[in-house]
Amino acid sequence: MMNNLLPNERIDDLHRNGYQIIQNPEGFCFGMDAVLLSGFAKVKQGEKVLDMGTGTGIIPILLEAKTEGEHFTGLELQAQSADMARRSVALNNLSSKIDIVEGNICEASKIFGKAVFDVVTTNPPYMNESHGLTNPDMPKAIARHEIYCTFEDIAREASYVLKPQGRFYMVHRPRRLIELINTLSKYKLEVKSLKPVYPMADKEANMILVEAVRGGKPLMKLEKPLIVYKEQGVYTDEIYDIYGY
Amino acid sequence: MMNNLLPNERIDDLHRNGYQIIQNPEGFCFGMDAVLLSGFAKVKQGEKVLDMGTGTGIIPILLEAKTEGEHFTGLELQAQSADMARRSVALNNLSSKIDIVEGNICEASKIFGKAVFDVVTTNPPYMNESHGLTNPDMPKAIARHEIYCTFEDIAREASYVLKPQGRFYMVHRPRRLIELINTLSKYKLEVKSLKPVYPMADKEANMILVEAVRGGKPLMKLEKPLIVYKEQGVYTDEIYDIYGY
Repeated sequence: MMNNLLPNERIDDLHRNGYQIIQNPEGFCFGMDAVLLSGFAKVKQGEKVLDMGTGTGIIPILLEAKTEGEHFTGLELQAQSADMARRSVALNNLSSKIDIVEGNICEASKIFGKAVFDVVTTNPPYMNESHGLTNPDMPKAIARHEIYCTFEDIAREASYVLKPQGRFYMVHRPRRLIELINTLSKYKLEVKSLKPVYPMADKEANMILVEAVRGGKPLMKLEKPLIVYKEQGVYTDEIYDIYGY
Repeated sequence: MMNNLLPNERIDDLHRNGYQIIQNPEGFCFGMDAVLLSGFAKVKQGEKVLDMGTGTGIIPILLEAKTEGEHFTGLELQAQSADMARRSVALNNLSSKIDIVEGNICEASKIFGKAVFDVVTTNPPYMNESHGLTNPDMPKAIARHEIYCTFEDIAREASYVLKPQGRFYMVHRPRRLIELINTLSKYKLEVKSLKPVYPMADKEANMILVEAVRGGKPLMKLEKPLIVYKEQGVYTDEIYDIYGY
């Protein structure tokens, strides 16, 4: 398959089912947040999943490996990323299980229709200040900043495409948590579970994993903390487990 | 002072400044939540503090010991608790620093006026299901269930009595966190910091400490986790520290 690679691209091992992924270090590589989200999201047998803003396709590929879900769709705005994701899907012989669709999250319910997915996952752009970006059209900027869609677009479209009682899983930054919760509530995505991710046990959280249910009751759990490092450079057992070691 | 005690009352040591507190084990004794709240709340030199639903007066007494605050007021609905709190204040010679006022949280802004406190603290009733209570007028039921005031009353009155940029500190249960955040946002109390409290490192959180700022910007920190026990029956160092050992 090496002849499918474009300049600067490389193939990385995912430590799951022998799966691999094509990435371009000049563009945008997946991070720990995507891996943690794929460990946090629950997908049951026969369920259909949409990943909003799928980038390299890392989340559908990992979820296909880890769960009994029936079908996975990755929606990606950037043509270059979508193409790379499609080639990774083919590389792992997953074309019957995973579709990569090029399009804007803002239009998800127009593209797919309403109440069609059991689960929506997203590792969205974290930053809502896009002013001052020198290259707002660079692939990394689009993946990191709310340039082509806002969090409100994501919540609204997720709510539309989810079946009643469908589940929404997201990774984000704690600093925007209040806004995120208020926006999810506005679109009937009731947060059921928050899992804070701490770089170390004595630091403040730098990521938050969120589970919400469409039309659920507003009662939630604050999950046990997920600590990334037990000491400088040494992952905790839970992180090794999520990474598939 | 022993002759000030009523039947069933006892005097407990607070491990702070030699302070003591009168409690009635037949009524309602303060718990770890009140102690953790007093360790979490920041009160600066010269500030005025209101504790809503002060019970035995534990929070104003601990905050007087731990901070440089100028004056502390405890508002308490139940006459018996308010009387006990007043006697504890006198027992510690704190009558010039702490006032105990009998009244309902719902009327806090009528009692004290608007924009008069720098800090509001509260360890409110946690439970909003009061149906099925066999004795809804028992002191413990009133302290634990939203019988005489709801969380919305607390948020509204806290917002009224706080000065602009005044700070609100609360301890509550994670299961109601989304409702709490939405209600605080409604009354312009913007959550700045959440600190989850875990009974042990591998359990879900059973308390949450909340800091909000009246009219603040909606950006927050998810604080490092507070773990109560390092093993069965053995507190972590942080808990010993908060308790003043």
